[in-house]
Amino acid sequence: MQIMTVKEKVASLREEMKKNNIEAFIVYSADPHMSEYLPDEWQERTWISGFTGSAGFVVVTMDKAGLWTDGRYFTQGPVELEGSGIDLFKDGVEGTPNYVDWIISQTSENAKVAVNALATSNANWEKVKTKLESKGCELVDKPLLKNIWTDRGTESRNPVFVHPIERAGQSVVDKLSAIREKMKEEDATAHIISSLDDVAWTVNLRGSDVDCNPVFLGYVYLSLENAILFVDTDKLEDASKASMKESGVEIQEYNSFFDYLKTLKNETILVSENSNQSIFEAVKENNTLIKKAVPGHLMKAIKNEAELKGFESVMVRDGVAMVNFLHWLTNTVGKEELDEYQIGQKLLDFRKKGKYFVGNSFDSIVGYKGNGAIIHYSAPEKGSSKVSDYGSILIDSGGQYLDGTTDITRTLPLGEVTKEFKEDATRALQGMIRLSMVKFPKGTKGVQLDVLARQALWEVGKDYNHGTGHGVGSFMNVHEGPQSIRKELNDIDLVPGMVLSNEPGYYVEGEYGIRHENLFVVKEWKKTKWNSFYEFETLTYCPFFSSIIVKDLLSQEEIDWLNQYHNACEEKLAPHLKGEVKEWFLEMVKPI
Amino acid sequence: MQIMTVKEKVASLREEMKKNNIEAFIVYSADPHMSEYLPDEWQERTWISGFTGSAGFVVVTMDKAGLWTDGRYFTQGPVELEGSGIDLFKDGVEGTPNYVDWIISQTSENAKVAVNALATSNANWEKVKTKLESKGCELVDKPLLKNIWTDRGTESRNPVFVHPIERAGQSVVDKLSAIREKMKEEDATAHIISSLDDVAWTVNLRGSDVDCNPVFLGYVYLSLENAILFVDTDKLEDASKASMKESGVEIQEYNSFFDYLKTLKNETILVSENSNQSIFEAVKENNTLIKKAVPGHLMKAIKNEAELKGFESVMVRDGVAMVNFLHWLTNTVGKEELDEYQIGQKLLDFRKKGKYFVGNSFDSIVGYKGNGAIIHYSAPEKGSSKVSDYGSILIDSGGQYLDGTTDITRTLPLGEVTKEFKEDATRALQGMIRLSMVKFPKGTKGVQLDVLARQALWEVGKDYNHGTGHGVGSFMNVHEGPQSIRKELNDIDLVPGMVLSNEPGYYVEGEYGIRHENLFVVKEWKKTKWNSFYEFETLTYCPFFSSIIVKDLLSQEEIDWLNQYHNACEEKLAPHLKGEVKEWFLEMVKPI
Repeated sequence: MQIMTVKEKVASLREEMKKNNIEAFIVYSADPHMSEYLPDEWQERTWISGFTGSAGFVVVTMDKAGLWTDGRYFTQGPVELEGSGIDLFKDGVEGTPNYVDWIISQTSENAKVAVNALATSNANWEKVKTKLESKGCELVDKPLLKNIWTDRGTESRNPVFVHPIERAGQSVVDKLSAIREKMKEEDATAHIISSLDDVAWTVNLRGSDVDCNPVFLGYVYLSLENAILFVDTDKLEDASKASMKESGVEIQEYNSFFDYLKTLKNETILVSENSNQSIFEAVKENNTLIKKAVPGHLMKAIKNEAELKGFESVMVRDGVAMVNFLHWLTNTVGKEELDEYQIGQKLLDFRKKGKYFVGNSFDSIVGYKGNGAIIHYSAPEKGSSKVSDYGSILIDSGGQYLDGTTDITRTLPLGEVTKEFKEDATRALQGMIRLSMVKFPKGTKGVQLDVLARQALWEVGKDYNHGTGHGVGSFMNVHEGPQSIRKELNDIDLVPGMVLSNEPGYYVEGEYGIRHENLFVVKEWKKTKWNSFYEFETLTYCPFFSSIIVKDLLSQEEIDWLNQYHNACEEKLAPHLKGEVKEWFLEMVKPI
Repeated sequence: MQIMTVKEKVASLREEMKKNNIEAFIVYSADPHMSEYLPDEWQERTWISGFTGSAGFVVVTMDKAGLWTDGRYFTQGPVELEGSGIDLFKDGVEGTPNYVDWIISQTSENAKVAVNALATSNANWEKVKTKLESKGCELVDKPLLKNIWTDRGTESRNPVFVHPIERAGQSVVDKLSAIREKMKEEDATAHIISSLDDVAWTVNLRGSDVDCNPVFLGYVYLSLENAILFVDTDKLEDASKASMKESGVEIQEYNSFFDYLKTLKNETILVSENSNQSIFEAVKENNTLIKKAVPGHLMKAIKNEAELKGFESVMVRDGVAMVNFLHWLTNTVGKEELDEYQIGQKLLDFRKKGKYFVGNSFDSIVGYKGNGAIIHYSAPEKGSSKVSDYGSILIDSGGQYLDGTTDITRTLPLGEVTKEFKEDATRALQGMIRLSMVKFPKGTKGVQLDVLARQALWEVGKDYNHGTGHGVGSFMNVHEGPQSIRKELNDIDLVPGMVLSNEPGYYVEGEYGIRHENLFVVKEWKKTKWNSFYEFETLTYCPFFSSIIVKDLLSQEEIDWLNQYHNACEEKLAPHLKGEVKEWFLEMVKPI
């Protein structure tokens, strides 16, 4: 098969558009499960444009084409789009038109606009549709790339295996019964689960169809009596088949899902508006829809005892890997030639020595000096920056283990660093500590606590442009909802059992990036006559580099917290360390 | 005219219901402008039930009647409802049915349920309607009390006077033009303003139709070319008429408003869903509706220079009144017989001496000992608690002045207070100080900052059950939106010019109440390469009682803030104080 250029691809798309009387076609970066990481065969946006960034979408009209992406890709975008005939539209920059407005301005009065409904959520579909219709345009579902991109890889055939009850902590039967209770509360007779982590959680199975996420392509359909898992049955290990049978879950082929949906009649279906629009197209005519969040989504976020036991155990293995790695790095840098990519690989090697290790929970971010300031930096395999014994390096990484998932960031001085760097590092750490120390009543949401992580920076007119905390799965996606700690409003209460990251940072473009990240879990603190009060218990064990802390900036309570944390690290990790590493580690955890 | 008992009133209502084939009738506590304080003739809920609380509504079916109200009124409710045949339903208590569910359970399958559409917002109407219709019931507009409550007072005939440009800071012409810009952004051709403070702000007029709020009954209808003020024209002073004429605002009778609305055709009308449902009934058939917040609402919240100058000046007068009052109180208590009501009256007398004083901005809360813990306490004219020289007293009050509005709370020790009281008072004050000190970037919302006011209490498992800050008008309602500082999510950014209260507290039922309240305004702090940063500037000048502060609990920064605040009080107020009061005051503002 001949390799097509972007120009040729766009030209072919325009032919398809012409045949179908479509004036504009939108290519989102999405799969049918609205996954954060896309399987290869769903990289439609990258295929049509050549642009490889993690965020952005393309609009093609008969004579123009544009890519909308955000500030992270204003440098990379033009490079990758060069010669493609696709213009870059800078999202978030004053004067950049909204893409729907732009479509309306570029098309005729009653234009038909198309998307592939499989690759967009119902929520987005409705938003775009309403806007287009208000101007007389129409939105239709046409998977126009299907006939053009014919050599897309087929789905992976990775095994789907059982996540056993000792680790899951709750049987499939109990999960289904809890979900059905919620369905009844909503007067629903049926329920569709399409997000891959929710599918995997519900049926206590795991896979590896998506990089770094232990999930597999699948849907769950649930009625009050029956449960069906739609999955490529060839991928199911025998134990998985047996487990489904035992749990009363019927198995049907992944590819038969939409045909099945079309047979549904007179059901009241609970379905998330984050499910793909094709689901809605298949059931909307003959059924009543209740658009609500998947009930299992919140259940999944609240870890049970078995899952928390897993986290505790994993954190020791991950901490040992981190300490060995940090010792290696600080003792090797300046002596051997190293680059960012090699450092990331070395960290992976250290993690691989840990029991139950499966793989990275995301692509490690190893950012030396100015690269540390690029929030979603990914060091290329070839030609990443050389790392030497001056300046600082930011390392954000995590592991998937059969019994848990980790996510940790440490910022290291590799030689002398400036006074300003130390002050910034201290203020960011202060944020992490203040958030770790807070006690808060039942009913508190993440947006209320976010300020604690930022205030020490705000005091000097500084800030960081990302969230402070995201949910973390249990041998599951490293990013999960519904809870968060961010500036943005999110109505979800923080409740005991929720695991979150705590990761304030500070970034100076071209110079350095700082981020300190631990995971913590919401725990009961005490019941008072006022309310139940909660606190965070830190899960991550790995020392911070005291040499970048300006002690005078910290309050006594903050110093005490740090010393106690290092003391806890010592208790947990020292028994698993030896020789030189142990000596180095014991220096690291000394009180400041 | 004979006075009817509640039982007779309910019986008459049931006759009306029968005639109209209505199975349930809801009596909300609301007026056609969704005002916080109701004009007397709109006290329908109080009239039908005898219940006088500020929150609650009544549902009457053919054989049952219920009043739903919240925790503030669980003591008062049963007393006032005794013998009425109306049952109390405790909102927020587990097991209390939602009133719409209750209606559905009490009525037949296709029951008609009625409300007076003038006394409910469109938002509430839609919510109730959707719920009723999902169970086959119907919601209709029937003002059934009209024929039963015939002796309701007619509207007050208070003069409507000009709020001059020197105080308003922006002409009516400019305000209309700014609102029309917003209408154009929404593609609206018309706009209806029904909330009384928004009406008064828009046309730079003031009145006194509602207790404590300098507003008058009116509506504004705006097209891109015309503006009409619907008002009882007899009430308009000549200057007001002249001002409207000069500003291009036509005047029509208040009572002709709905007839006018019915003449509208093919308009695209911007109207808030907090407007009464009758407005929607009048225009929905022949026009397109855009439901959005009144654009002037946010404009009103952002005070201009003239308004802020007014606040500054008013705060000196109000502070002088407070200091004179506090001196009088602390020197009189225990020597003369005093009760809570008298103390409130005395405070009003001191305020009356101030230039441009109009009246209280709300009914003063004077709560001695345990009464201080009742958040919306109102001391009765007859029989309020005697106040003597032990325990503490909480005094929350405010004034309306022609050039501004105030709201201030001080908590005073009248003799010895316990160690626990002092600690609680210090923690609440610490919250007020921490919130006063914060610097925050553009885009920050009140919910993000609320924790700063609570954290010192949370640390010991305590909290307070009310918001931390509300918007305050400029010679306007003491409570105004859209901004707030609360636990509840509110998407409105805090922007320079917004005036808010800062009022953390702590309450021990039956023992004492503590609240410390200043007003502050959002100001530019500095622009950094990160963002524009803002800070709060405190507007209120009145010392706190150092004798109830546990200095050891405060950080040095907090102590510095307090000393600087007292220093500012001295600068502003000392020149206006004399003799004994001044001596006492100078002791009060000494550094701790």
